[in-house]
Amino acid sequence: MGIVILGGTLVTMGEKGVLRDGAVVIEGNTIIDVGRDDEIKRKYPRYETINAKGKVVMPGLINAHQHMAMSLLRGYADDYPLKEWLEKWVWPVEKHMTGYEIYIGALLTAIESIMSGTTTVNTMYHYMRGYNEAKAIYDVGMRGVIGHVCFSWRKEEDNKALKELSSEWHGRDNGRIRVSVDPHAPYTVDPEYMKELRALTEELNDKYAPENGPIIWHTHLAETGDEAQKIKDMFNIDVNVGVVEYLDSLGVLGSDVIAAHCVHLTRRDIEILRLRGVKVAHNPVSNLKLASGISPVPDMLEAGVVVALGTDSPCSNNSADMFEVMKVAALIHKGVYKDPTILPAERVLKMATIDGARALHWDNQIGSIEVGKKADIIIIDFQKPHLKPLYSETSHLVYATKASDVETVIIDGRIVMENREIKTVNVEWVLEEAEKASKRLLERIHETSI
Amino acid sequence: MGIVILGGTLVTMGEKGVLRDGAVVIEGNTIIDVGRDDEIKRKYPRYETINAKGKVVMPGLINAHQHMAMSLLRGYADDYPLKEWLEKWVWPVEKHMTGYEIYIGALLTAIESIMSGTTTVNTMYHYMRGYNEAKAIYDVGMRGVIGHVCFSWRKEEDNKALKELSSEWHGRDNGRIRVSVDPHAPYTVDPEYMKELRALTEELNDKYAPENGPIIWHTHLAETGDEAQKIKDMFNIDVNVGVVEYLDSLGVLGSDVIAAHCVHLTRRDIEILRLRGVKVAHNPVSNLKLASGISPVPDMLEAGVVVALGTDSPCSNNSADMFEVMKVAALIHKGVYKDPTILPAERVLKMATIDGARALHWDNQIGSIEVGKKADIIIIDFQKPHLKPLYSETSHLVYATKASDVETVIIDGRIVMENREIKTVNVEWVLEEAEKASKRLLERIHETSI
Repeated sequence: MGIVILGGTLVTMGEKGVLRDGAVVIEGNTIIDVGRDDEIKRKYPRYETINAKGKVVMPGLINAHQHMAMSLLRGYADDYPLKEWLEKWVWPVEKHMTGYEIYIGALLTAIESIMSGTTTVNTMYHYMRGYNEAKAIYDVGMRGVIGHVCFSWRKEEDNKALKELSSEWHGRDNGRIRVSVDPHAPYTVDPEYMKELRALTEELNDKYAPENGPIIWHTHLAETGDEAQKIKDMFNIDVNVGVVEYLDSLGVLGSDVIAAHCVHLTRRDIEILRLRGVKVAHNPVSNLKLASGISPVPDMLEAGVVVALGTDSPCSNNSADMFEVMKVAALIHKGVYKDPTILPAERVLKMATIDGARALHWDNQIGSIEVGKKADIIIIDFQKPHLKPLYSETSHLVYATKASDVETVIIDGRIVMENREIKTVNVEWVLEEAEKASKRLLERIHETSI
Repeated sequence: MGIVILGGTLVTMGEKGVLRDGAVVIEGNTIIDVGRDDEIKRKYPRYETINAKGKVVMPGLINAHQHMAMSLLRGYADDYPLKEWLEKWVWPVEKHMTGYEIYIGALLTAIESIMSGTTTVNTMYHYMRGYNEAKAIYDVGMRGVIGHVCFSWRKEEDNKALKELSSEWHGRDNGRIRVSVDPHAPYTVDPEYMKELRALTEELNDKYAPENGPIIWHTHLAETGDEAQKIKDMFNIDVNVGVVEYLDSLGVLGSDVIAAHCVHLTRRDIEILRLRGVKVAHNPVSNLKLASGISPVPDMLEAGVVVALGTDSPCSNNSADMFEVMKVAALIHKGVYKDPTILPAERVLKMATIDGARALHWDNQIGSIEVGKKADIIIIDFQKPHLKPLYSETSHLVYATKASDVETVIIDGRIVMENREIKTVNVEWVLEEAEKASKRLLERIHETSI
């Protein structure tokens, strides 16, 4: 027997648009019917019901770029120049992180993500055997694409990790978990290794993908303005074109690539993104905080590039709140382009749902409320002072809704949060473990630096 | 007998800085002691206590620019060009607003403001006898400066309103309510009227200010790039300098002026702001949403201008959330100036507290937790997944805290919200009235346009 969500306003992000007094029927992990409240009530009289009167029912948000484990460094070092931030603060701590700490950090971020309406996450970190981000996402009941990040200086280790990650996790739990190959960036992965990773990706897809969806690429691209210089410094290669064009010259770009940031682009770079079908994950909060710049999102959208939204890590954001990211994305380009009609609410809502699904090659199963899709659904309480009065649900969802208005979260047909209570893991325990882990990290750093 | 807040981390924004295991003692509406938890416990054994263990205790946030009543238009029209937005959407509705509707709109915003940690608001709207914004702020228990907005085309009406507003409200309830004179903008108030308003302000100050604090000026300034052209169009005056310089040439600028926006400034304009001691209310969310541009806040701060933070109206924001405004203020200038060290968390926190108090000429009584100041205090629950782990309270307050983390709010010594429950007005009733009022407004517009 299934679940019927009755009486809410459905913001489907699909063909049915916005449906007042609507209802959704879930059986197993699948949406089997969507319609008018009264009709559905008659058709499915014996199903368990969730009353969504006065609430908005929509597809779960999709966070297209994360490093979940890094929540352990939230607020550890802010307001530093990027190079100092990474070299003096972040990397020394990360060097000391164990698999268990990565697991706890990812669990913490997963809890925050679910509590703010995110049901699917695309996360890049270091895969370790046993405890890792994949296990955290699995345990908490989220949907996710979990990657292992690759660097030129550890090819052998990376290849082993990618193979193990794929065989252990790709397609787990009815396909709720997928994996990705994550070349860190063009300035940390040399051309030869880029090509090798492309070949390895095909091999892994041949082996694991067919029944479980594709193993995609997740990479950083054009985050800062000095990437060509960094490539020169690292690999002694003269890049006299945009970094997208450089990467394309290696023959590695394709429609299965999701590129985070894309802040510093030439006209030609944007054309290549479109031609190759590369998907972009836009992270406005992180890009502003790290002073990377402002991505030319309106130009990419105009060119027809699929642009999704991400928070980036809780260390460069410092939260995992996709509602906040939606609002900042809607605001920033209006201000920069001096045009208040740019990125209207509806457009931004698509970026956080169906376009996020497209970016992960998962839009056949998630990103909208439609019959046949997986039941990844959030219910938002609209009876709040800051959501009154109500003229347009779409406007409120982007400009006024807060993470804390998310009341109930269903992922893969399972109620993972109900009335703001996480049902799958012990939140108190995770918070305690996170505090302990952060103290251990500081101690280890301190010992090393003596 | 008073209240003791025990065991929390005090972020005083005053001389004591951040004090862990701290305590604050309130008697009447005044802070009478601040110190270490254990000492205070011994000194005041019989006071009512609030346990703030695991929480942050800080001065209430100060919203330096609002039009509270406009919550009734939240999400009514977004993503339109400014001129169309005002002329086709906002003004036609506002024309039909009654005093009662203004009261309800302001009450709604006040509830949202308190629930997101704001204790003092500086709001500009149309004063009407009986029901108005001042009554809303009075009834809900907030602290506020309530202005009446003045236009060239209704001088007589404005003068009457200003006199009545001052005599009725300035200094009410132990000085919790203050009033201001609000010339709308340099392009809607002609030079003669500006000077007349300056003279009237002195007259009102002579009469009502001495024991109640000053009656200040609250105005819009340099919000969009075309104000010189608008002044030419309206008053046939050639403004060949910055608009601040133009206003200064009328002799009306002084340290009692709080100017909202200040987005389009010349170097000389910034110098004049500093020379005259004009205070600036920076509204980054509204400026971005309306595509007005990005205010040169770092330049103003460097010049020594006092810059406070505001949300602007719930119609151009679309919320009254000062935590969100703090984060956007901290982010946007880093991105635009390409410098991650600009506007660090501590600087931004000052803008929302003690500098907000300075901007309202109220820093002798509010803006920090210090002995002798009014007890405007908020208590924030830090035991949340998105606030773990904890390295720095200051960083978390700006980059990670959510409006919904505010648990208890004390204004003028009175507990106005406790465990997120508003104690002063019936919230359900306000929400219902707000929905009804918005429906009436739409009907009236519809009738007129037929």
